Amino acid sequence: MALQSFIEVKPDSHFPIQNLPYGVFKPEPGSPARPGVAIGDYVLDLSEIAKAGLFNGPILTGSDCFLQPTLNKLLAMGRPAWKEARATLQKLLSSTEAALRDNARLRQKSLVSMVIVMYGLVIVIGQAWFIGCGLLMLNLHLNFQGKVEMVLPIEIGDYTDFFSSMHHAKNCGTIFRGPQNPIPANWFHLPIAYHGRASSIVISGTDIVRPRGQGTPSGNSPPPFGPSQKLDFELEMAAIVGPGNELGKPVDVNEAADHIFGVVMMNDWSARDIQAWEYVPLGPFLGKSFGTTISPWIVTLDALEPFACDAPKQDPHPLPYLAEKISKNYDISLEVQIKPAGQQDSCVVTRSNFKNLYWTLTQQVAHHTINGCNLRPGDLLGTGTISGPEPASLGCLLELTWNGQKPLSLNGASRKFLEDGDEVTFTGCCKGTGYNVGFGTCSGKIIPSPSL
Amino acid sequence: MALQSFIEVKPDSHFPIQNLPYGVFKPEPGSPARPGVAIGDYVLDLSEIAKAGLFNGPILTGSDCFLQPTLNKLLAMGRPAWKEARATLQKLLSSTEAALRDNARLRQKSLVSMVIVMYGLVIVIGQAWFIGCGLLMLNLHLNFQGKVEMVLPIEIGDYTDFFSSMHHAKNCGTIFRGPQNPIPANWFHLPIAYHGRASSIVISGTDIVRPRGQGTPSGNSPPPFGPSQKLDFELEMAAIVGPGNELGKPVDVNEAADHIFGVVMMNDWSARDIQAWEYVPLGPFLGKSFGTTISPWIVTLDALEPFACDAPKQDPHPLPYLAEKISKNYDISLEVQIKPAGQQDSCVVTRSNFKNLYWTLTQQVAHHTINGCNLRPGDLLGTGTISGPEPASLGCLLELTWNGQKPLSLNGASRKFLEDGDEVTFTGCCKGTGYNVGFGTCSGKIIPSPSL
Ligand SMILES: [Ca+2]
Ligand SMILES: [Ca+2]
Ligand SMILES: [Mg+2]
Ligand SMILES: [Mg+2]
Ligand code: NI
Repeated sequence: MALQSFIEVKPDSHFPIQNLPYGVFKPEPGSPARPGVAIGDYVLDLSEIAKAGLFNGPILTGSDCFLQPTLNKLLAMGRPAWKEARATLQKLLSSTEAALRDNARLRQKSLVSMVIVMYGLVIVIGQAWFIGCGLLMLNLHLNFQGKVEMVLPIEIGDYTDFFSSMHHAKNCGTIFRGPQNPIPANWFHLPIAYHGRASSIVISGTDIVRPRGQGTPSGNSPPPFGPSQKLDFELEMAAIVGPGNELGKPVDVNEAADHIFGVVMMNDWSARDIQAWEYVPLGPFLGKSFGTTISPWIVTLDALEPFACDAPKQDPHPLPYLAEKISKNYDISLEVQIKPAGQQDSCVVTRSNFKNLYWTLTQQVAHHTINGCNLRPGDLLGTGTISGPEPASLGCLLELTWNGQKPLSLNGASRKFLEDGDEVTFTGCCKGTGYNVGFGTCSGKIIPSPSL
Repeated sequence: MALQSFIEVKPDSHFPIQNLPYGVFKPEPGSPARPGVAIGDYVLDLSEIAKAGLFNGPILTGSDCFLQPTLNKLLAMGRPAWKEARATLQKLLSSTEAALRDNARLRQKSLVSMVIVMYGLVIVIGQAWFIGCGLLMLNLHLNFQGKVEMVLPIEIGDYTDFFSSMHHAKNCGTIFRGPQNPIPANWFHLPIAYHGRASSIVISGTDIVRPRGQGTPSGNSPPPFGPSQKLDFELEMAAIVGPGNELGKPVDVNEAADHIFGVVMMNDWSARDIQAWEYVPLGPFLGKSFGTTISPWIVTLDALEPFACDAPKQDPHPLPYLAEKISKNYDISLEVQIKPAGQQDSCVVTRSNFKNLYWTLTQQVAHHTINGCNLRPGDLLGTGTISGPEPASLGCLLELTWNGQKPLSLNGASRKFLEDGDEVTFTGCCKGTGYNVGFGTCSGKIIPSPSL
């Protein structure tokens, strides 16, 4: 029988005991941020588990890596520490283990509900003798607490965005440069990427301010200037770097998986009019740097392992430094919904899958470091927009509406690009037998450009 | 008469009392890093000055900004704090002020020699009653101390590199894309830039490992792979960001100077073969990310102010968000020398000047933030290669040798691009009447690619 937790996990939950994704949260506004893992509708507070001495394996005993406001210290410790933490937590949360299950006081301190309506229930489940007071606190808290606040789980030193979906590369090339050779000659030889902006990476739920900027002028007019008229999302995922490497010492492609802690969903918001005008010859800059949203939960490579699948065959055969013994993708279903301002319902605008990527995460790491560039714990490596081959699997509006030429209908509202008030939500999930390993959601709402 | 320090400053020194550039140093290997300012051949240890209570103005009294291992906290405090610190230090170091001049014990603690042969002299000047022991220490220290170790003065969240010299843009465009319209249409409308790699920024004196990578294939062959055959320097300067701005709130171009703490020299090492193959369509990546060297001393905008000069007239007139009331450059002479391995002497290969830039630092800040992108204290904004109009003022070997077609002679040694063992040194200096405001040097030596 499958591993089960003593905590109730609904069948459609993204967060069963098989997942245990890492995040950083504040149990209440103003309280210090601390690491947690998601389990069902709860966050397990790892600072409390550490303080209780329950990380008692050889590597993590006495470590303060769970007493930090980010996960960077854990990331730096590498895969042996990650494996030990996962084994410890799966045991601790399993239905057959008494240490936490039967310790009402520790449950009450360490298990925090993620949903408002569940708050009373935490108390009930967590601390039976405390029911009366729990219900009282429910009343007291509801007004100001809302729910657990998720914050950026890592301090991101550098953020790189790749361009690893062939379908996306082909469609963008056709739209920006025409149908003759839309995919540049280098694309099949190396995972193309650019450096992104780290400062404007925000956590899911943060509003995105519509950027201002220049667009392409017509004739001899000055460039048009104002709020972007072609604001877009990009459906991506991103790897989070573990130990990293020293400057001057590349990571071998067959050891690169040890440098990836896990994966998040990422929305690389893009202003297509700003991007089209600025990007020659040095690449995307202000068309991207106004905001990038990541999901709060980092799903570890270990949790994704049951969903590994073969990566696409690569032709031409990659150079030796990119040729890996085992070339893996992951079967992760991805969905994008848009909810226009004032509408009740979201509309699904695309369904794609992580396995549509041509270049693997491990090839991305090997390529990134082949010149000696150093990766550091917490660096973020975006995959690039994950478009599939079918029209309904394209990963951004640029492709879905073919640069605005074929508007989408959202429950009757027409969209070429995003409008103020639109809320974009990504969902990602691996479907296992009897359980899911999911990423939750990654969302953001567009708010108008402020007046200057 | 000009302001003078009680500390001897030679006439050709870069560091008179008019300069007082900021850096971070370790007085001895293993000691904690702390902020200092350069004065003549000495570093004034600002942690000691702070501990002695001598930062006694309204903003800095009691602040711990000088008790940090980086300058980021000082940067975040903004121009009023920087002005106060400068006034305090100029007074403290002036020949007419007794507080430090006549306090032998404090001088001994806070003034550290930057040059080995001067060590005895520190003691002599710094603490007369301590001469005997000072000379003894000289003997004891010479073997292991070397000299003061300068470290990266800031934690750099994001590094951006602009492309602001028209001469450089024109030459690169001609070499990479041909003589028809070498400067892209957008160049005259906006300061083009790309995000650079923050992790591989190193302090002057750090060796640079020759990067490996792919080059452009000929015909149907696979791309050539190996150590770069076209390793280059780029003569640049870089602004260091002060308080920065909130996400979504652009910085006005006329207030942008308040967001710039100061300027360093920067060598944006570039592998032209890697860059040429990878840069379409997303810009430079591995051709740049293997290393970027900055000089240790940050010369403040206040120290540069006497050397301000008019920026070039811009035609077409920039859009309103880039149109500034006063458009300033600075008259900073720059020189690049190369010393091949085994040679005694360096060879000057170029002489340029900061005032060759078309886009100003303040326009760069305004453009960077117009889309709402947030700058943070310690961000680094490179100017781009500073090439002048004359053949002897070009800022990189790509231009100087016209992509290797016209080799340079260095005391008899021929160079198309950099060879292993070559040491590249930048010097930057503003010539005042009776004093200089200089940047010291920014240097790095090429070491061979390690075997894989
Ligand atoms: Ca992207
Ligand atoms: Ca450059
Ligand atoms: Mg973005
Ligand atoms: Mg560089
Ligand atoms: Ni960065």
